[in-house]
Amino acid sequence: MATSARLLSYPEIKRDPKFAKLTEEHVNYFKGVVGSDSAIIDGVTKDASEDIESYNSDWMRKFRGHTQLVLKPTNKEELSKILKYCNDNMLAVVPQGGNSGLVGGSVPVFDEIVINLQKMNKIRSFDQVSGILVADAGVILENADNYLAERNHIFPLDLGAKGSCQIGGNVATNAGGLRLLRYGSLHGNVLGIEAVLPDGTIVNDLCTLRKNNTGYDLKQLFIGAEGTIGIITAVSIQCAARSQAVNVAYFGLESFEKVQEAYRTAKGQLAEILSAFELMDGRTQKLVNKVTGKKMPLEGEYPFYCLVETSGSNTDHDAEKLQAFLEHVMETEIVLDGTLADNQTQIQELWSWREGITEVLGHEGGVYKYDLSIPISELYDIVNDTRDRLTEAGLVGDGPDYPVVDVVGYGHMGDANLHLNIPTRRFDKAVEKQLEPFVYEWVQKRNGSISAEHGLGVTKKPYVSYSKNETMMKLMKQIKDLYDPKGIMNPYKYI
Amino acid sequence: MATSARLLSYPEIKRDPKFAKLTEEHVNYFKGVVGSDSAIIDGVTKDASEDIESYNSDWMRKFRGHTQLVLKPTNKEELSKILKYCNDNMLAVVPQGGNSGLVGGSVPVFDEIVINLQKMNKIRSFDQVSGILVADAGVILENADNYLAERNHIFPLDLGAKGSCQIGGNVATNAGGLRLLRYGSLHGNVLGIEAVLPDGTIVNDLCTLRKNNTGYDLKQLFIGAEGTIGIITAVSIQCAARSQAVNVAYFGLESFEKVQEAYRTAKGQLAEILSAFELMDGRTQKLVNKVTGKKMPLEGEYPFYCLVETSGSNTDHDAEKLQAFLEHVMETEIVLDGTLADNQTQIQELWSWREGITEVLGHEGGVYKYDLSIPISELYDIVNDTRDRLTEAGLVGDGPDYPVVDVVGYGHMGDANLHLNIPTRRFDKAVEKQLEPFVYEWVQKRNGSISAEHGLGVTKKPYVSYSKNETMMKLMKQIKDLYDPKGIMNPYKYI
Repeated sequence: MATSARLLSYPEIKRDPKFAKLTEEHVNYFKGVVGSDSAIIDGVTKDASEDIESYNSDWMRKFRGHTQLVLKPTNKEELSKILKYCNDNMLAVVPQGGNSGLVGGSVPVFDEIVINLQKMNKIRSFDQVSGILVADAGVILENADNYLAERNHIFPLDLGAKGSCQIGGNVATNAGGLRLLRYGSLHGNVLGIEAVLPDGTIVNDLCTLRKNNTGYDLKQLFIGAEGTIGIITAVSIQCAARSQAVNVAYFGLESFEKVQEAYRTAKGQLAEILSAFELMDGRTQKLVNKVTGKKMPLEGEYPFYCLVETSGSNTDHDAEKLQAFLEHVMETEIVLDGTLADNQTQIQELWSWREGITEVLGHEGGVYKYDLSIPISELYDIVNDTRDRLTEAGLVGDGPDYPVVDVVGYGHMGDANLHLNIPTRRFDKAVEKQLEPFVYEWVQKRNGSISAEHGLGVTKKPYVSYSKNETMMKLMKQIKDLYDPKGIMNPYKYI
Repeated sequence: MATSARLLSYPEIKRDPKFAKLTEEHVNYFKGVVGSDSAIIDGVTKDASEDIESYNSDWMRKFRGHTQLVLKPTNKEELSKILKYCNDNMLAVVPQGGNSGLVGGSVPVFDEIVINLQKMNKIRSFDQVSGILVADAGVILENADNYLAERNHIFPLDLGAKGSCQIGGNVATNAGGLRLLRYGSLHGNVLGIEAVLPDGTIVNDLCTLRKNNTGYDLKQLFIGAEGTIGIITAVSIQCAARSQAVNVAYFGLESFEKVQEAYRTAKGQLAEILSAFELMDGRTQKLVNKVTGKKMPLEGEYPFYCLVETSGSNTDHDAEKLQAFLEHVMETEIVLDGTLADNQTQIQELWSWREGITEVLGHEGGVYKYDLSIPISELYDIVNDTRDRLTEAGLVGDGPDYPVVDVVGYGHMGDANLHLNIPTRRFDKAVEKQLEPFVYEWVQKRNGSISAEHGLGVTKKPYVSYSKNETMMKLMKQIKDLYDPKGIMNPYKYI
């Protein structure tokens, strides 16, 4: 799907008539629970201290709902009363954290009541010895990480939206991001959750132990459930010691086979200090060069580039390891050229060749974006196959006659997570017809994932079955029905 | 509970009459499915190629059941037929891997049919680039790790029983072990599973991707479910590059506060190369010294000892880091003395002071053993409190009048996992009365876990509610009822 600024109105989805419409009586009940200051009403009555529209639209202004009520509970007891009342009265709800998702998961589709977690934003505890943090769901990721940085620890998750996303939303969407290669997924790092179920039950599973083998690990169901079975109100999470040394190298390579070889070598030689291995194809780097006018980091031009980051506890040791790795991969011609950043300015400069891609892609128009996971040996094939397909259809070329500018690929090589991007001059049904279901079918044939880290929300719901077989779909629906039998939680989305 | 060789017969548990008794017709059906070679029958008929008793008892010979039938399916389709038939005919089953558990989870309580996974023992695939291994449930852990070692990778789990335990059993029991501090838990490392449900449904969720955000992460329910909702037939798992350098240090410290300080310092300074931080109290070390006659590693005697292991990719760097750490903690008097092993013989010698504890504890008689997780600041308090309690009751002392020899503590400090051990001269009801429910209540008050890594099985089932509240118990039972409505899977155990 395209990510240009289009307000989606979901013509194909109809409001489910089983859900009640908001009345003044409902509103009065909710005001009694959270107080007038924590209810933004712009519907049956108008009593809004702030504009309700910012809660109806996502940050990209791509998705737009029509809620008449936003509630901001300040504790789990208030949330419990809210959800119980909604469940008893068939009022649909959408939980909302920082509203920084990419798939329309955190805004209403129709008139669902928005339950915004921003007022539950306290750090509850941090154990300096074990590194275990307990915090409310509404704590902003960057605030949590800054709090930890002052205590020489690191939040095991980092992503572009860290200044606005909330850790409850991160856990609810199983966010991936930049530190996954090093610290692993939230399924490993989250030790406990506190959540409220649709019937108002408060689930206290806020375990602060690394090991606890006393029954089914139910918190795991909430990690990545996108608010469809309950609302997370707090999390406890394992945090590592913060690395004192960071180094970055940037390489040019002649083929994707060599990229794989470089990754394998980095895993072996850099091992415990490897913290990022990012892939950028030559087309993305030339585009960054063209749009920004910056001089490319290496002299020649190569079909593939990699950015390798190390993080460790000893600057000299890490630099020595990275230098040895660099010499090895150059001597054995795994890479053709490379450069090593040895100060913070240079490190940021090299990272800008990876992080700047998203912005420059939209330079000529809209971008079709796919967030895919594919077994690593075939990771880049989807880019070539998609380019061939669009080229054969006469859709790619220079000049205004062609809707498609190019087909490019980049992403988290270490996580086998490819961002397939198709920058265009204009959106065109002919292009969409070539892309879908082609891309999804291609991924399905390789047992890949049609959503590696962005989740499902409203946009990927129709395509889940490309990554989950019929049995898994049935088992997932069982869980949804078990926890949310009336279906009030974040409807029209997910599975 | 005590771990001496007592064959438990569970007088308090009654066979559930809802389960059918095995008939010749049943046996004939199963023989038709798996073939005569894969069915050991010693009941309604006798057709056993090997003694059935080894499948009825665990390796400690502590637990004993009375099955008349052991089935060894060779593939998931056979297993599917077996379970569907059992479910349709109300025949209870117990899944069995390497039978190396400590809580009686893998042997029948009465006449449940044993389903042994040992014939499903193939490595299915290994991707050298991503480090992802796919293997049958019945592969022995050591075989998997040796296979990976030849390919410069490491299985992210290691434990004493590695020569007999199976990876399916490891995942089903969420085994902890020696590498958890470094590589994290199986909830983070297992990427996918294949399993058969009680109704015969084959669940194929054998994902080989590090990232896949397309729905509820149902495989997590099977990790640690101890075969109560289905039987795992294969797993895919993320494996790290194998470390080339290993170093070990051994310290003496004056208090548990200093142990915590040492751990915090190790986390900060050794950071990415820290692979074990083990705690041993002075009493355990004197016991090892007394029973083995070996000279203690340090000159003086200290109330606490720690073993610190590092694993990394560069021997010189790691030795330098560990040496710097050692100098720092000695200069600042966090530790009072220490020694550093610089060759494999010395490393093994130092490890023997930790690994030798279990054996020497049983030197004078039986041992009451508890596997607890407690917030790290209070981790050792349970040892002192238990010793005080038994001392006040006049049960601890030198000489044959006293049943209790001592109360000691050791364990995985880095995982906040303490093994509380009470070596005795004889088992004594008076001692048991002082210990239980005292220990469980003590742990409950601190939100600890009454089973950190050993699981529940039959022995911990009565005590789950000390670590899980009423809501969690209810939610866990919901899951059990959802997946196994007839209750045929590993009955009388778990929750």
